[in-house]
Amino acid sequence: MQFTVFSVMALGAGAVAIFYAVWKTWWILHQPIEHEVLKRIAGYISLGARTFLIREYSVLLPFVLMVAGFLALGQEGSLRFQGFSFLLGALCSGAAGFVGMYVATSANARTTEAAKMGVEHALRISFTGGSVMGMIVVGLALLGLSFLLFLFIQPDTLSSELSTTVFPILSGFSLGASTVALFARVAGGIFTKAADVGADLVGKIEANIPEDDHRNPAVIADNVGDNVGDVAGMGADLFESYVGSLVGCMILGVASASLDSSSDSVGIRLAGIPLGLAAVGVIASIIGTFLTRVRKGESPQKALNTGTITATILAALASYPMIQVFLGSFQTKTGAGAGSIYLCVLIGLLAGSGIGFLTEYFTGTGSRPTGSIARSSQTGAATNIITGIGIGMISTGPAIIIVALAILGTFSLAGFYGVGIGALGMLVTLGIQLAVDAYGPIADNAGGLAVMAEFSPEVRSVTDSLDAVGNTTAAIGKGFAIGSAALTAIILFSAFQEQSGLTVIDLTHAPVIVGLFLGGVLPYLFSSLSMMAIGRAAYAMIEEVRRQFRERPGILKFTEEPDYRRCIGISTNAALKEMILPGIMAITAPFLVGYLGGLEMLAGLLVGVTVSGVILATFLSNTGGAWDNAKKMIESGMYGGKGSEAHRAAVVGDTVGDPFKDTAGPSLNILIKLMAIVSLVLVSFFK
Amino acid sequence: MQFTVFSVMALGAGAVAIFYAVWKTWWILHQPIEHEVLKRIAGYISLGARTFLIREYSVLLPFVLMVAGFLALGQEGSLRFQGFSFLLGALCSGAAGFVGMYVATSANARTTEAAKMGVEHALRISFTGGSVMGMIVVGLALLGLSFLLFLFIQPDTLSSELSTTVFPILSGFSLGASTVALFARVAGGIFTKAADVGADLVGKIEANIPEDDHRNPAVIADNVGDNVGDVAGMGADLFESYVGSLVGCMILGVASASLDSSSDSVGIRLAGIPLGLAAVGVIASIIGTFLTRVRKGESPQKALNTGTITATILAALASYPMIQVFLGSFQTKTGAGAGSIYLCVLIGLLAGSGIGFLTEYFTGTGSRPTGSIARSSQTGAATNIITGIGIGMISTGPAIIIVALAILGTFSLAGFYGVGIGALGMLVTLGIQLAVDAYGPIADNAGGLAVMAEFSPEVRSVTDSLDAVGNTTAAIGKGFAIGSAALTAIILFSAFQEQSGLTVIDLTHAPVIVGLFLGGVLPYLFSSLSMMAIGRAAYAMIEEVRRQFRERPGILKFTEEPDYRRCIGISTNAALKEMILPGIMAITAPFLVGYLGGLEMLAGLLVGVTVSGVILATFLSNTGGAWDNAKKMIESGMYGGKGSEAHRAAVVGDTVGDPFKDTAGPSLNILIKLMAIVSLVLVSFFK
Repeated sequence: MQFTVFSVMALGAGAVAIFYAVWKTWWILHQPIEHEVLKRIAGYISLGARTFLIREYSVLLPFVLMVAGFLALGQEGSLRFQGFSFLLGALCSGAAGFVGMYVATSANARTTEAAKMGVEHALRISFTGGSVMGMIVVGLALLGLSFLLFLFIQPDTLSSELSTTVFPILSGFSLGASTVALFARVAGGIFTKAADVGADLVGKIEANIPEDDHRNPAVIADNVGDNVGDVAGMGADLFESYVGSLVGCMILGVASASLDSSSDSVGIRLAGIPLGLAAVGVIASIIGTFLTRVRKGESPQKALNTGTITATILAALASYPMIQVFLGSFQTKTGAGAGSIYLCVLIGLLAGSGIGFLTEYFTGTGSRPTGSIARSSQTGAATNIITGIGIGMISTGPAIIIVALAILGTFSLAGFYGVGIGALGMLVTLGIQLAVDAYGPIADNAGGLAVMAEFSPEVRSVTDSLDAVGNTTAAIGKGFAIGSAALTAIILFSAFQEQSGLTVIDLTHAPVIVGLFLGGVLPYLFSSLSMMAIGRAAYAMIEEVRRQFRERPGILKFTEEPDYRRCIGISTNAALKEMILPGIMAITAPFLVGYLGGLEMLAGLLVGVTVSGVILATFLSNTGGAWDNAKKMIESGMYGGKGSEAHRAAVVGDTVGDPFKDTAGPSLNILIKLMAIVSLVLVSFFK
Repeated sequence: MQFTVFSVMALGAGAVAIFYAVWKTWWILHQPIEHEVLKRIAGYISLGARTFLIREYSVLLPFVLMVAGFLALGQEGSLRFQGFSFLLGALCSGAAGFVGMYVATSANARTTEAAKMGVEHALRISFTGGSVMGMIVVGLALLGLSFLLFLFIQPDTLSSELSTTVFPILSGFSLGASTVALFARVAGGIFTKAADVGADLVGKIEANIPEDDHRNPAVIADNVGDNVGDVAGMGADLFESYVGSLVGCMILGVASASLDSSSDSVGIRLAGIPLGLAAVGVIASIIGTFLTRVRKGESPQKALNTGTITATILAALASYPMIQVFLGSFQTKTGAGAGSIYLCVLIGLLAGSGIGFLTEYFTGTGSRPTGSIARSSQTGAATNIITGIGIGMISTGPAIIIVALAILGTFSLAGFYGVGIGALGMLVTLGIQLAVDAYGPIADNAGGLAVMAEFSPEVRSVTDSLDAVGNTTAAIGKGFAIGSAALTAIILFSAFQEQSGLTVIDLTHAPVIVGLFLGGVLPYLFSSLSMMAIGRAAYAMIEEVRRQFRERPGILKFTEEPDYRRCIGISTNAALKEMILPGIMAITAPFLVGYLGGLEMLAGLLVGVTVSGVILATFLSNTGGAWDNAKKMIESGMYGGKGSEAHRAAVVGDTVGDPFKDTAGPSLNILIKLMAIVSLVLVSFFK
């Protein structure tokens, strides 16, 4: 069998996804916006987001070029092409974020406008906006990888050649994607949360004006933040996950084929199956998006469920024949056949859903744990914080047990290759999962715009109903993100170990233990840097909003327009300045530890950062989510409702949770993979 | 050389320490208390603390007897005596906590009384109270261990026999100590923080009465809590650390002697040196306590510094001749001689001090990081919390780097035996370190009593001056506690690995990685359980204090005495109920993982819990400490001082920090060692 077959599949699926995205973008742009105020405010948001992303990319460009130059000039032979593939990965990641943001900022105002006609049409626009994002991400990933494959493979390329010359180039692509993703996540997260915290603390608590009130000078920055953080940042993030798990799994595919196998083609087949799975997932996701429609009298939640569940079932069903056709009766060197590999896909799907349902249980509105946070808000902010942290900590236990079982299960079925297939299983329907994820901020923005442009209560109730759904689906998406990050980091570590030539990494050697300690502490340092950056930026934002209210009393009386641009400026400058240090740290730490401490310590570092990072990320995401929903429970009328003492306490928890769940937590998922991929790319230096 | 020599040294040093403790207790009890109100209130506190500890021990007794019975009846040969030594370890640990608490509750009122005569005499009583605690802990540890040694060794016992028959019995002693320590720390921590949080939130924030005001119904419970948590809990904690590092180091001593060595006596010598170091440390500590005196015009801080620094220097100087005399020109199997082993002692001392100074930098009053928390309090509780968590997270980095360097340094000098000697180096002057640690709550209580018994402002200013010092010294003590916990857990893991027969624990095996994940998440679960328990108990306490203020308005007008006993009852019941689950979890987790997942997964679990636990403990302790001192900085007049908005925000942070720094954080240090020692004791079951 030739690897070209799989490359063609990836190319085809990627092309279909991009075609879908272009078509739907065209459709969205043809939806009308008639309301003048809406148009103006949406224009501010769109312009702010575009300006920020362009500035962010211009800050990153020299750095990306430098790394690309280093990879191209500092290496020999075909490894030089890593410089090119790194650049391509960085560009694709940036493009995915930019296009997603562009479509989201176009869809939000059109959703508000469409809400005048009812929930069906409004859902259609907002979900379509999300689905463009989803398809752009998977499409660019598959097109980028298949482009590189067509450049570097021949019809007669052997699996050993894939391993030594082609896959290192794909690793460069993955490194480029991860690098941009980390900066984009951190920068976007800092931007959005500085604005959010600043807007909430002065607006809601001090000035007693509602959320999204256009008298608040930070409100536009807050909405821009949703698009550059939650949309563009998330797009780059999942692009990185998807590419990382595909590349890691392909590398392990070749490594899992027996060396003395009569036919070289087993390695080719095993390495190709991940691309086949991705292609199956794209088709299933597109079918799912067509089924995501609100029918008369049905809730938007049901529409989202129908779409995602159908896509997942289709992908699960279609994977088996695909694996069977391409693997036939061949086996890995540990004896895993098509059936075992298929079971790994299912374990991945189950584990991801399991973590998602747990996330929903620990953080959802109305669940018992979230309720206990709401209740403890009655005795003040301190007990709200203590209970929230307690809930967040306990929630890590079940999630990690599922991760552990998934690793054990897939590993015993097909070794680390099985773990990789499990990770891919979690990401196989990424197209539609990401559509739901990106739908969230679009619907949220549409609601904000309805408030700011002072639409009628009927319109607002439509946008509110859109905003209220999708939480469960998004929680499940988060579960897939966390689970796949853990498994992908492990397979990248395994790929690193394969390439490093280390046959044993012994926990009874002190350097390995030291590596674990150093790796374990990095997620804390990394989270600290991003959270303190938000603390500082939010402080500046609060001072600025207070100043505007104080110096221009007309703002609160609706007679003066606040200066939105100064607030956008504060968020922009903070984000661009503060993304540098954590980003540099993530890239240089494996380099320094590998250089000074050796390969064994580096291996310890990678495992340490994975274990500690996955747990800390779960803790931060869930704590933040639970605080958010505890506040929403109180706002819906419990314990005195809005304006009560309990509500003030819950707002404190929600504010603390913002950087937890939207900046530090998700960035950690990238950090652990980025460090593994840096080590994988640099392994030849250390040897 | 015979091991009896070392046993005699340990016995002698232990006897001297106990003699010192008895003598000083007698002296304290002969100091007068004349003030009637003081006597009455101190009586409440003393009775409350005694009652609680007796109830705590009666809850623990059946559990301890059950485990002892299991060890005695479930095993064969000399391992049966583990049941006996376990019981002895548990009893000694309980006794250390009880005596320390008894002396502390006797010394506090006498310190208040003595404060009438000035700072010299007051310091003398409070510090002597602390030193009794210190000497009881090291004395009981050395007496207990030497008693077991005399029971089970003969003059001709070979080092291999030490390893197979005697040391398992010592491990049982260590397990007993760790078990009681964990329960005592958790229960004491829950008791004291439920009362503290409850007293502060209603008293300071709602009723606007000062701290330690006797109108607050929770104030006596708060003071009882200081004695059962900060004194008795800490005593049991450090007893456990001391015993664990001694036993672990002795086991590795025999293992580090070359098997083909011409003389068996190298193993004997290496195993004996830890006892020799302990004996040197006891003498140095006692000399240090004699030098801890305030001279005319000098500050109490200087007296504490003189004592601890002298003791440390003496111990450092005397260790070298001791090691040289007993080891001579013999070497470990990796070629480490007396000089290398001595260097490990110094590395331990340096690393401990280094972590201590870092702790002081990140959490001390007036330091830049703490100042930034104080500043961020101006924009409310949320920014105070975010900044505090950020500072706490960043503080883990330098501490872990020091731990990592200490491990690398000692390991390269003398293998894991060197790591053990480094851990002992941190604990060698435990006698006086613990004296300073226990001095803190005594001085704090003395100040509280001065307020409650309405002593004159002059007396209060003396007790305040006592309370204000010792922070730096205590921070350094904390550094030693964290560092020694990390190193001790690692040597216990190494001892476990020696006994398990695992020659390689390979990170490329999925079960090891799964073990790391499971171990990594346990500290989160454990912290969550204790923090949520505090959240619940504090909630009940707040409701009770509010109820008393509401139903008996005379309390706030000084015409009615509040019902202190109900508040003590709430703390007592919560502590006894809530200590069970985390305690059981800690003991059964290694058992379950070893039984279901095998030895490799268990090994991963132990390393995972150590890495994750040390980092999380450092984070929790430092975050809590920094919030506490940020509040104190504001109380001293910054940003509006007491009663300002910034102060209210800082009180929220301080309250959240209470369970962080005084319950969850310190308990984790015990957890990691307890799990290692459980595994060490049970290793024969799993094989």
